Amino acid sequence: MKLLSLLSTFLKDDQISVNATVLEQHSKDESYHTPHDPDVVVFPRTTEEVTKIMQTANDLEVPVIPFGLGSSLEGHVIPYHGGISIDFQLMNKILEVRPEDFLVRVQPGVTRSQLNKELKKHGLFFTVDPGADATLGGMAATNASGTTSVRYGVMRDQVRDMEVVLADGRIIHTGSMTAKSSSGYHLNGLFVGSEGTLGTFTELTLNVYGIPEATLAGRMVFPSIEKAVTTVTNILHAAIPVARIELVDARSVQQVNKTNETNYLEKPTLFVEFHGNEAGLKQDVSFAKSIAQDNDCEEFIFEQDTKKRALLWEARHNLAYSFSHGSPGKKMMVTDVCVPISELTGAIVDARKAIKTNGLDGALLGHVGDGNYHAIVMIDPTDSEELDRAMKLNQHLVHYALERGGTCTGEHGVGTGKAQYQQKEHGPALGVMKSLKLTLDPKGILNPGKIFAIDRVPN
Amino acid sequence: MKLLSLLSTFLKDDQISVNATVLEQHSKDESYHTPHDPDVVVFPRTTEEVTKIMQTANDLEVPVIPFGLGSSLEGHVIPYHGGISIDFQLMNKILEVRPEDFLVRVQPGVTRSQLNKELKKHGLFFTVDPGADATLGGMAATNASGTTSVRYGVMRDQVRDMEVVLADGRIIHTGSMTAKSSSGYHLNGLFVGSEGTLGTFTELTLNVYGIPEATLAGRMVFPSIEKAVTTVTNILHAAIPVARIELVDARSVQQVNKTNETNYLEKPTLFVEFHGNEAGLKQDVSFAKSIAQDNDCEEFIFEQDTKKRALLWEARHNLAYSFSHGSPGKKMMVTDVCVPISELTGAIVDARKAIKTNGLDGALLGHVGDGNYHAIVMIDPTDSEELDRAMKLNQHLVHYALERGGTCTGEHGVGTGKAQYQQKEHGPALGVMKSLKLTLDPKGILNPGKIFAIDRVPN
Repeated sequence: MKLLSLLSTFLKDDQISVNATVLEQHSKDESYHTPHDPDVVVFPRTTEEVTKIMQTANDLEVPVIPFGLGSSLEGHVIPYHGGISIDFQLMNKILEVRPEDFLVRVQPGVTRSQLNKELKKHGLFFTVDPGADATLGGMAATNASGTTSVRYGVMRDQVRDMEVVLADGRIIHTGSMTAKSSSGYHLNGLFVGSEGTLGTFTELTLNVYGIPEATLAGRMVFPSIEKAVTTVTNILHAAIPVARIELVDARSVQQVNKTNETNYLEKPTLFVEFHGNEAGLKQDVSFAKSIAQDNDCEEFIFEQDTKKRALLWEARHNLAYSFSHGSPGKKMMVTDVCVPISELTGAIVDARKAIKTNGLDGALLGHVGDGNYHAIVMIDPTDSEELDRAMKLNQHLVHYALERGGTCTGEHGVGTGKAQYQQKEHGPALGVMKSLKLTLDPKGILNPGKIFAIDRVPN
Repeated sequence: MKLLSLLSTFLKDDQISVNATVLEQHSKDESYHTPHDPDVVVFPRTTEEVTKIMQTANDLEVPVIPFGLGSSLEGHVIPYHGGISIDFQLMNKILEVRPEDFLVRVQPGVTRSQLNKELKKHGLFFTVDPGADATLGGMAATNASGTTSVRYGVMRDQVRDMEVVLADGRIIHTGSMTAKSSSGYHLNGLFVGSEGTLGTFTELTLNVYGIPEATLAGRMVFPSIEKAVTTVTNILHAAIPVARIELVDARSVQQVNKTNETNYLEKPTLFVEFHGNEAGLKQDVSFAKSIAQDNDCEEFIFEQDTKKRALLWEARHNLAYSFSHGSPGKKMMVTDVCVPISELTGAIVDARKAIKTNGLDGALLGHVGDGNYHAIVMIDPTDSEELDRAMKLNQHLVHYALERGGTCTGEHGVGTGKAQYQQKEHGPALGVMKSLKLTLDPKGILNPGKIFAIDRVPN
């Protein structure tokens, strides 16, 4: 009650909600993780309002959970300790496009498709493309990536500067507008991927790129996953600059055909794309083709037609959702490990076995040029036996990766789902992370319980 | 005395030196900054020895300053508060090359030329190339970059993992061996560029790249600096993927000709390089040529010959040293601001004026594709009037950059030389940096006074 009356001193009535439906909408993400309601949802319009929200929360020791579109996959936005869910949907302005500087300044509620629509007018594009049409604030919070990171890098690589509101209401900038800097500590790097546990983002300055002169995209079909993955590693070793190289296994292609108007061969397939100039692309593609053929490639089809190319990537992007929509009542568990490239073939073969061993129906797909791959498994979270088998699969894949120099999450982030693996992955570095957290958030109000538990949690 | 006797309990006699010459060698870097001796220089061979050195220093509250080759340019390695200079020359092993994973594991004392010599056997190369043949530990400490960062990124982009010894002797790993990760806080980012103030690096896992199939390099000569810089921005906007694009002004070309067996036209010149496949390169170069011609390019010469190409880049790399060796008794001041590309032409024209206004003989050159440029000025640091004019130039360039969204240091780091600009550049974020420093180094023993002063400095 005290919280609500304090919030209403600087927010309008329509910026504060305790409506049951609104609370429920902010109780969950896209994943299997158990929902939990916040106490209140607020909709700030300005950095000043976010500052006052943070100060109020800090004074009262109430948790604060930033919320974009709720498309996270590891429970990041779920308010397990109640508190204030800050929904950034009203802070969705593209503040500035600077084509000459290849940068854009946006509010955190802007989505990647909204940004790309605007950038297209300037011959530019934003590269990071997770499965969901997530908000850029959310993507920075989880250090998201996608199909193009093999060429252009992950979210962290795109952030030049952020305006961040700290737990105590201080407003800082984490970088500058320049392409590079050696000045001071790299706060950009620290805050990107901090999942709302160190501060709340209110503005982002991001790298954008010129739309390449020419693009070629296509599919390569293989008799086995091993042959497909070996082709990926061979292409990388040949230093052919692929812009995208995605594995979709037979089960995934089946789902693509089911949901789209395609009749792709239902075998392990690589979806690939090359960016460059016409002459260079022809040579890249012919080199890639000869490598694929050495690995018994059965079909090598490049889509010249813009529509067919768009369909290819749309099908790939919507793959997770097509599983999800094809299994009403079920929830998605998506594993997300990443391994060094030399371990990739072994890891994917092992993952296929582990899906079978655990009696699950799962697809394997991923950004294999980075060593990052996902198993998608649809489960009924109320069926504890099925959930248990899915958790065992997840755990198996994580341990397999960690034992080979890998990471428990390549791009989805930790949230609550990967918190249990942080000690194993980071060892004594986890202690350093916790001490940084307590330095910046001594009362532990910022998205408590995410990434790791700390001793101090607000009531 | 107590310090020396404690150090000698775990280091051999030849690993500890208080010899006056050795102390003097560790009292300075390549710059104009005033030297100051350490109390002792140690030469550890293992991480365990570094750990014991750190614990000893922390117990006695004695400063610790990591030392690579002393090629820093802002006084980073100068022990202004005395203490222990840790020289990493005995920790210079290339521990592992993993060609399949495009990574290498090295000790901090390995130099970039030593690494590249080894990598060549595997068809690989390490991209970051500062002017000096610095150690990789030192390059990570300052987040160094060079001529190729416009294409491949800076030092921070190459670090996958580091082994770091903290002030209290804890050993942590800051990342993993994977190409990407969203697990935990990005300690890689925080420690790279921390200039020895947060911990000491004892091992680095770095990205390496396949040597490109084809390389073309050349020179473009222009009637004015404006025309040269406009060509750079036009090439970037055309999304031609240059691997290197370096400005050397008329004064710099004059120095190149003086020191090398070249007779390049002594006018503003761009040194450029393209990496890719043969067909793609031809198209890139012809596109670049048409852009240059639109900007009144007077000479467009591509060096087909490997030797001529090597000479071109050797001349560029040795430029700072050729100034330095051409002015015996004088010391080098190199400015290092970086601005958004849209501000580059204005900034360089202004810098040329400011050199003149301050009555100095200075060359302008830089990594203009990143917006990063240097004025090189030779000064007699004992001539306080000349030093004062050089400081005024430096300050003028920094303020010009900061007022336009730039940074006071694009690649050399802060050290002591840029400490005075940290408040202006970072504002309230500087408070965050200081609190992170005190969390990890509560006694303030780690390279005290560098980047910023903190209240607590060891005796």
